[in-house]
Amino acid sequence: MKQSQFFVKTLKEWPSDEENASTRYLLRAGFIDKNSSGVYSFLPMGLRVLEKINKVIREEMNALGASELLMPALISKKYWRATDRWDTEVLYKVKDSSGQEYGLAFTHEEVLTPILKKFISSFRDLPVSFYQIQTKFRDEPRARAGLLRTKEFVMKDLYSFHIDEKDLDLFYWKTADAYKNIFKRLGLEAMVVEAGGGGFTKEYTHEFQVLTEAGEDEIFYCESCDFAQNKEITQAKEGGKCPKCSKGKIKKENGIEVGNIFKLGTRFSDAAGLAYKDKKGQTKPVVMGSYGMGPSRIMGALAETNRNEKGLIWPKESSPFRVHLVELEGGHSQAVEVYETLNEAGIEVLYDDRENVSAGEKLTDADLLGIVWRAVASSRTLAENKIELKARNNGESSMVGLETLLKHVK
Amino acid sequence: MKQSQFFVKTLKEWPSDEENASTRYLLRAGFIDKNSSGVYSFLPMGLRVLEKINKVIREEMNALGASELLMPALISKKYWRATDRWDTEVLYKVKDSSGQEYGLAFTHEEVLTPILKKFISSFRDLPVSFYQIQTKFRDEPRARAGLLRTKEFVMKDLYSFHIDEKDLDLFYWKTADAYKNIFKRLGLEAMVVEAGGGGFTKEYTHEFQVLTEAGEDEIFYCESCDFAQNKEITQAKEGGKCPKCSKGKIKKENGIEVGNIFKLGTRFSDAAGLAYKDKKGQTKPVVMGSYGMGPSRIMGALAETNRNEKGLIWPKESSPFRVHLVELEGGHSQAVEVYETLNEAGIEVLYDDRENVSAGEKLTDADLLGIVWRAVASSRTLAENKIELKARNNGESSMVGLETLLKHVK
Repeated sequence: MKQSQFFVKTLKEWPSDEENASTRYLLRAGFIDKNSSGVYSFLPMGLRVLEKINKVIREEMNALGASELLMPALISKKYWRATDRWDTEVLYKVKDSSGQEYGLAFTHEEVLTPILKKFISSFRDLPVSFYQIQTKFRDEPRARAGLLRTKEFVMKDLYSFHIDEKDLDLFYWKTADAYKNIFKRLGLEAMVVEAGGGGFTKEYTHEFQVLTEAGEDEIFYCESCDFAQNKEITQAKEGGKCPKCSKGKIKKENGIEVGNIFKLGTRFSDAAGLAYKDKKGQTKPVVMGSYGMGPSRIMGALAETNRNEKGLIWPKESSPFRVHLVELEGGHSQAVEVYETLNEAGIEVLYDDRENVSAGEKLTDADLLGIVWRAVASSRTLAENKIELKARNNGESSMVGLETLLKHVK
Repeated sequence: MKQSQFFVKTLKEWPSDEENASTRYLLRAGFIDKNSSGVYSFLPMGLRVLEKINKVIREEMNALGASELLMPALISKKYWRATDRWDTEVLYKVKDSSGQEYGLAFTHEEVLTPILKKFISSFRDLPVSFYQIQTKFRDEPRARAGLLRTKEFVMKDLYSFHIDEKDLDLFYWKTADAYKNIFKRLGLEAMVVEAGGGGFTKEYTHEFQVLTEAGEDEIFYCESCDFAQNKEITQAKEGGKCPKCSKGKIKKENGIEVGNIFKLGTRFSDAAGLAYKDKKGQTKPVVMGSYGMGPSRIMGALAETNRNEKGLIWPKESSPFRVHLVELEGGHSQAVEVYETLNEAGIEVLYDDRENVSAGEKLTDADLLGIVWRAVASSRTLAENKIELKARNNGESSMVGLETLLKHVK
């Protein structure tokens, strides 16, 4: 993609009306725009990152055997009434001209269970699982952490349906593994943390937390074993002994919750009358799980944990492009050759072909944008018949031929 | 994709609570589900069609040079006030717990012009264009035409920004051509129809109308030339002489509006103060256009115009899969071979590998689903060492070898 033909614009100044540091980076680099407190647009470069994140999520959800669908946001009051959530949990309510009331969906159990009721009747129809990547709305009084806590956000929600608790348990831990794969591929270190069941289950549920100062949750974890709990449920104390391994010390850090997994049991299938006939012909309630993940919050967490004073540093699978090709004076013919070679090899490249822009401005922009690899073509590199290739994460650069460049960036 | 691992379920009966015929087909085939009047979910097969439509739209928008972004739905009252649309046009209003008011966006001029104000200052920055594929909300009292008229729907909206009317005009007609390409590729015949400017422009705007009885608009067009106008603006009379060519007779038919293109002039750039400096350094307002298209309504229009008594008939580029491979008794080894061959060739195939389902049920389902090509493997086809390949649109079938099959479905 040529920069002259794709909207890639950075701001000259750091935005002043944003408390969260990583969000200032995303704003400055032109990845997002703030519409109002807690409400953002994804500009073309930011949307590319969001789509990279979504791609990885889709691949791992499909590998779980889940089918993708898309449910609406405008959910009629009657569905929320049926599960007793209209008065207690629905946050944005709207009324149409005919007087019908709707709640903007922040979760979709109320929509999906009635759908399944139409299609499922036997143990042969189970297990089955569905996910969507869809816009959600939450009334968020604390909307001051940029992309980390917004009123409108992109969410992946997965729902699974089983014959019994045992089958749910199997799927639950398979999903935990899929979540780990997703975060690893995207370049995020996420810790599995025990959390409370919110009235649905007496067992622990699990959150995936990215430890960083900007996070708004508090996590207590053992420095030696895998014990980790959130503040709401833990009895562990900072500096105390780990209750699990009895050896390690307990540490406390802030975390960004990027995902959670949750056993729902029969709470929603009971409300919707979602049941199946087992092998003996007996009617039993379907057992459910739900599993959330926030692609737009993941983008914020990535920006939070991958940047330096010069700008963003995208990991490979979440980078908006694989290569940022920067043409400086005298480098045109070489740049065109690199551009065509990368395109032919199917490697996504952003080509800074802008005229009348100084070398300094181009390189500053490249650092702000933070694409994983930067390739520079100039009169100097032309003279050597090589390209200057630089990794954005460690800043190491070397002069390489076209074939070596291809090998590196693949 | 194996049918045993992907959610493909049809209903045994035609739904009784839906007036619009094509929507009954989509419901019966399990492509969509009705949540409430005018609010639908896209089930996995339906979402695949929607994504095929979106893919074609994206390709043609990118070819225009437009950059994709994603804007929010929750738009603060202050933006609607600035353009005087809060009281007259915003239909769904929500209030958060802090008393802030928002309008659910049905269009995005109010969001995009303030963004561009941050990034655009010179004639060198223009022209530029942006599109998104995003969920829109409209208070729709007449929500009884299924997918053709909904309260929540998927929309592609494109906005363009120019130095003057002349440049806008060029882009306007380029976009009209892109629209024609999109509808042609998707298998929709859409007529370009003149319409009114809704107070924004004295010139005609243009709608893209699919002529069919189920449409809710009325179109007057000439049987000989390309004259076509909607009911609101026309002075032509059914059966009368065409005012343009003076030869043809005027016909009247119902139409489904699947797209529209619109010159906005400086209405929104004036309100947002979006201006640029021209070559002489003079400040001038940016001239805008906006261009809508409804992917979910297109899906409805496709279903309306492509079906027979047995079910849906998807055109090639909008079909959820390219091939529906149906395994009947004795056809297992052959089906597996076809499945692997198609997958290797990168051809999307839905493989009905269900056990304990009768041949009749499988073939009835295949007709309901309406995938463009159907391939049947059975003991009979095995004996001939050929596959039965049938085109869903004309019902013609032939016995073909694997290579011929590949050639046909590519």
